[in-house]
Amino acid sequence: RPKFLLDLGVGAGTLIQMTRARLAALAAPETTYVITGTTHAAEVARQLPELPAANVLIEPAPRNTAPAIGLAAAVIHRRDPDAIMGSFAADHLVADEPAFHAAVRAAIAAAGDGSLVTIGISPTGPETGYGYLRRGERIGTSAAYRVEEFVEKPSYEIAEGYLRDGRYLWNAGMFVWRAAAFLEELRRQLPDLHAGLMRIAAAWDGEDREQVLAEVWPTLPTETVDVGVMEGARRVVTVPADLGWNDIGDWDTLAGILGTAGRSATFGDSPAVTIDCDGSLIYAGADRLVAALGVRDLVIVDTADALLVCPRDRAQDVKKVIANLCADDRVNLL
Amino acid sequence: RPKFLLDLGVGAGTLIQMTRARLAALAAPETTYVITGTTHAAEVARQLPELPAANVLIEPAPRNTAPAIGLAAAVIHRRDPDAIMGSFAADHLVADEPAFHAAVRAAIAAAGDGSLVTIGISPTGPETGYGYLRRGERIGTSAAYRVEEFVEKPSYEIAEGYLRDGRYLWNAGMFVWRAAAFLEELRRQLPDLHAGLMRIAAAWDGEDREQVLAEVWPTLPTETVDVGVMEGARRVVTVPADLGWNDIGDWDTLAGILGTAGRSATFGDSPAVTIDCDGSLIYAGADRLVAALGVRDLVIVDTADALLVCPRDRAQDVKKVIANLCADDRVNLL
Repeated sequence: RPKFLLDLGVGAGTLIQMTRARLAALAAPETTYVITGTTHAAEVARQLPELPAANVLIEPAPRNTAPAIGLAAAVIHRRDPDAIMGSFAADHLVADEPAFHAAVRAAIAAAGDGSLVTIGISPTGPETGYGYLRRGERIGTSAAYRVEEFVEKPSYEIAEGYLRDGRYLWNAGMFVWRAAAFLEELRRQLPDLHAGLMRIAAAWDGEDREQVLAEVWPTLPTETVDVGVMEGARRVVTVPADLGWNDIGDWDTLAGILGTAGRSATFGDSPAVTIDCDGSLIYAGADRLVAALGVRDLVIVDTADALLVCPRDRAQDVKKVIANLCADDRVNLL
Repeated sequence: RPKFLLDLGVGAGTLIQMTRARLAALAAPETTYVITGTTHAAEVARQLPELPAANVLIEPAPRNTAPAIGLAAAVIHRRDPDAIMGSFAADHLVADEPAFHAAVRAAIAAAGDGSLVTIGISPTGPETGYGYLRRGERIGTSAAYRVEEFVEKPSYEIAEGYLRDGRYLWNAGMFVWRAAAFLEELRRQLPDLHAGLMRIAAAWDGEDREQVLAEVWPTLPTETVDVGVMEGARRVVTVPADLGWNDIGDWDTLAGILGTAGRSATFGDSPAVTIDCDGSLIYAGADRLVAALGVRDLVIVDTADALLVCPRDRAQDVKKVIANLCADDRVNLL
């Protein structure tokens, strides 16, 4: 099981369930969609039982975010041509839910004129694991700013400069736009992808869906939304926000989010046993048992490559260690 | 929703749930698999919550039964090289469950030596909608017989001859075999399919599953198990059985199975309303409401093409009408 399907053991469910719960204030189950691959679709469908089964969109093959989000946009647009949609990863943590809701609502307002909106996270450190964007002038008196530039993951020195500069925000991959506006950008920038998605959407509610999907999907370009759409889009704006967004390696924040006052949380694919442990986070990610007895406010991270043990209040200092655990660039949490 | 996912409204759940319940005496949830396409996977996973999510195998594209059943065989074989597996359609009805269990157990015994076993249904009429097989000599004192020949759907006159002959059985697509024996027949008869499935199975529990599936699945031949494997297999035997297996158009049998003594059942995609109705079956398959008031022991079948109304005891006479409702050859029930 990937991390977004693991119960964090603190009563809030799994990361995808926490993501759905966070969005429940903004979208009804009937207008909430999830896009997933064939491997995890069954588990996703079960973890989100309130969503209509028809809203679980299954990619026949992984082709990165532009086709995946494009498929959702095409299906949503077919059902509601005026829809404003948001796109959020299933494995992100957000500490400040009211701030998240406010940011998404501001993004919805900004998307009304056809702009593609990305929520820009105020950086809390010279992070080298994220892409950044530079905000430009403010749009009137709104919460949105023009985006002047997207930049790839920077070096530490450059990231320090970004932090001092103040105009740079983390590009967290949280997008809001009119489905029609996004599809129009696909048509302009990735016409083959757009044409393929239109064929699939036209067949979606008919008997030929799987045949058309099987025929068209393998021909779609493998591309990210960031590079394929956002970097070249005509009207891109950002809503800056300070969300307590998950920060790679920030296990102390995670512990805070999980409310571990006097509790411990264990996760990972391997078994973990805790006896008389308080306020500790244990990640069992190597192929062996992790046992903790009588520890307090510790972070224990066991992977095939490394074992990290440190007090929670030192967890900020070990980002680089933990960044090594995150070679998979779709995993932003652990 | 296709018919196998519709609740028949009589407390027994949907056809796929009835199929799983029928098999529960023979296989634990952990060793029960379901193969489905991307369109219905989410609903299937929810309707069979006792199955591990990893046992919901999703075809990236429809390629008929040989790749679908072959995928299951390859995954099962990887997890248990000695496994004997059975394959059953999700949309069949079986009236006599003890007879079904006895037949499958006899088939399991017959499969022990590496034979491919098909359960042969004793025909109850000169049915032209099914394939037949001709049984030959009995295997020792077992319940199994050699299969001399498979024959495609016959004309009415030929079907009448089969019925008189007594050696012909309906080929119901219920198979039992050692996974290893089936894969060996694939290797011999459909080597490209075998090689592709081996590649997929090898990647199944790793991180590359979806990539390998995406690369290999579209190259697999589209083929049925009947034509591609069974007709040319070296050791094929049949276990004859009288199961009260679903008979196209036999709405009276269906009514009996559904236990409609004094009850009525409605199904189909469209709404149906019954008031003061007894023992009636109502299929609402056209794009309009069906309302029935005070009817008794009636069959009402409403489709876009035709409306049929007849007493239950005349339902046997209208097979040809109802056969027209079954243009989709994967739908054996309605």
